[in-house]
Amino acid sequence: MKTIYFDNSATTCVSAAAAEAAMQVMREDFGNPSSLHGMGLKAARRLREARETLAGLLQVKAEELYFTSCGSESNNMLIMGVAEARRSGRIIVSAIEHAAVQEPARYLLQRGFEVCYAPVDARGVVDVDKLCELLTPDTVLVSIMQVNNEVGSIQPLTEIGAAVKRLAPQAIFHIDGVQGFGKRPVELARWQADAYSISAHKIHGPKGVGLLWLKQGVRIPPLIRGGGQEHGQRSGTENLPGIVAFATTAAEGCRNMAANTAAMLQVKQALYEQLITIEDAVLNGPDVAEGAAHILNMSFPGVRSEVLLHCLEAQGICVSSGSACSSHKSSGSGVLAAMGAGEERADSALRFSFCAENTVEEAAVVAAAVKAAVSDLRMMQKGKGKRRR
Amino acid sequence: MKTIYFDNSATTCVSAAAAEAAMQVMREDFGNPSSLHGMGLKAARRLREARETLAGLLQVKAEELYFTSCGSESNNMLIMGVAEARRSGRIIVSAIEHAAVQEPARYLLQRGFEVCYAPVDARGVVDVDKLCELLTPDTVLVSIMQVNNEVGSIQPLTEIGAAVKRLAPQAIFHIDGVQGFGKRPVELARWQADAYSISAHKIHGPKGVGLLWLKQGVRIPPLIRGGGQEHGQRSGTENLPGIVAFATTAAEGCRNMAANTAAMLQVKQALYEQLITIEDAVLNGPDVAEGAAHILNMSFPGVRSEVLLHCLEAQGICVSSGSACSSHKSSGSGVLAAMGAGEERADSALRFSFCAENTVEEAAVVAAAVKAAVSDLRMMQKGKGKRRR
Repeated sequence: MKTIYFDNSATTCVSAAAAEAAMQVMREDFGNPSSLHGMGLKAARRLREARETLAGLLQVKAEELYFTSCGSESNNMLIMGVAEARRSGRIIVSAIEHAAVQEPARYLLQRGFEVCYAPVDARGVVDVDKLCELLTPDTVLVSIMQVNNEVGSIQPLTEIGAAVKRLAPQAIFHIDGVQGFGKRPVELARWQADAYSISAHKIHGPKGVGLLWLKQGVRIPPLIRGGGQEHGQRSGTENLPGIVAFATTAAEGCRNMAANTAAMLQVKQALYEQLITIEDAVLNGPDVAEGAAHILNMSFPGVRSEVLLHCLEAQGICVSSGSACSSHKSSGSGVLAAMGAGEERADSALRFSFCAENTVEEAAVVAAAVKAAVSDLRMMQKGKGKRRR
Repeated sequence: MKTIYFDNSATTCVSAAAAEAAMQVMREDFGNPSSLHGMGLKAARRLREARETLAGLLQVKAEELYFTSCGSESNNMLIMGVAEARRSGRIIVSAIEHAAVQEPARYLLQRGFEVCYAPVDARGVVDVDKLCELLTPDTVLVSIMQVNNEVGSIQPLTEIGAAVKRLAPQAIFHIDGVQGFGKRPVELARWQADAYSISAHKIHGPKGVGLLWLKQGVRIPPLIRGGGQEHGQRSGTENLPGIVAFATTAAEGCRNMAANTAAMLQVKQALYEQLITIEDAVLNGPDVAEGAAHILNMSFPGVRSEVLLHCLEAQGICVSSGSACSSHKSSGSGVLAAMGAGEERADSALRFSFCAENTVEEAAVVAAAVKAAVSDLRMMQKGKGKRRR
């Protein structure tokens, strides 16, 4: 049975080039970048080159980049760091942030910070007017994601950045770019951003490596202290195989972004056009062409996501009911709730997420499988209902 | 020019088996362990198997193990976590801990904790009697390394553990095992340890993965919050390629530990016997057979380590002047200072660190190169001295 992998927002297959690069570093250029001998100097050069590649892609200075172990660490380092540097004040996050932003914010609420949630509209887009009402001079941090991981909504970062700088000039404006980088243009200057988090494994790089961009002048204490790597901002021997692989896949992904996005949008559209013909099917998130090309989220009321997911999984089709991180939790999606979707819609939502390798043929197979499964499950449901009466 | 790599305490070459394992996970079993479909379940199974392998090697329960991104993160998570859980009290670390223990301790000193340094003797071994004088009922944490990374001294953990439990029964006893695991037996129960940190890249695994063992019942808050991976103790998508490679190399290393240690000790002894014939050469650390088999540290008074290091490096020989992490700092080794070695000895120290692949033939080449370099450099020194007069 051939697997169809439509869960690329959870994680991706490492590209051949990135895996090769990691392999080469693991087996040959394996030195410690802090060592002063030839092996160390070569490792330090590979590290510098990777940093410069990523800096070029983000159009920032290489010395503003700090390698971490994942997007979650980048988000935690920034949020906990700002909190420690500022000691008190207001923190604003959107109502649909990833757990790696929500959880640190929740923790800081317990520690005396004021935490406010910027609401989103029915499409999952931050309402800038309502955000403006929350922005105060004592706001120390505003953290908004570039692209939502569950519904693919793209946030109006230029407007948000301008509002933050106008109404909360002391605040650090952080963007969680984990689902945006490599899929959408990155315009840190235009967004007036102060910090940006990304992760390798969402863009065909290996798990275990992330990055935090900190605009020059933004000073936060480190989360991990020790040998003083990454200019003292993040100690621990650098994950060089992961970092070199990250730069490799990022360069590849950004170079081919337009073509990749077009290919993913085709798959998304093909799948959507089929699935929307299912009775009562509903799109969660922005219109197909308006959301991120790699995420499609739809509900099939009357059918529980988990059940549908298992039906598809039995046919080798990998999709998810929301973000992977919350898949083992019993509570439904906070994102759909924040968008005002009712419980039934939230309970019957499926997320399909694509990479450029996916095809419209795969979309056709998945669409047929979803149609059949929804139909069967609804039939069973009706049968049960009848028996119950 | 063939490279001779005698800097295995800084980092090691990833073994073929470990690199292959990482490659397989990156390219094939690349699912997110949190995903509920087949790819996710397979990834979760690989994660569970790796955890069980490591638990078996450490003779602990699998659910007591938390994967991290490196030894530094493991140390930070434990130290910062204990501090947050206990709020105040005394912290004791040895005077020769790695920066990833020293720096969090220094930070906590600024935050109101009392930090005491357990002194070591001339061999770099913690003086248990003096440690006992420091242990108080309000001690919340004692952190001691298994094997010192610069001089290879092996700490008397059984005696230390017994003393901690007797005199500071409230304290968490943490062992930094980064230089010990895979090289020396691990006896966590006998040591009465509560926590143990290790790292993959010191034992032929990839950089970017570490582990913290927390004895059942020890509760500390996480350092990184988010999706709730690792039982909520460490969020962020698990570095599965790294973790599987870690388990692979750890199993291999522990299985062959006796043979590997014997091979390394032969190399160490061969090198020592040659180098000790150099005039004024002095061994730093315990007697050759008493210290860890993989580390030899010697001083050649009158010759600065950096200069000697560069002479050797020009001949393709990789050694270090101390720990890699502090190699870019101008200050000398704190370890040698704590051992009472004078400035001249500290400034002229070289660390040679081995793996089982190293040979006595390599030792002979390195010994000859060191002899020649020390002789040349001392000659030049003398010449300069004459000119000055």
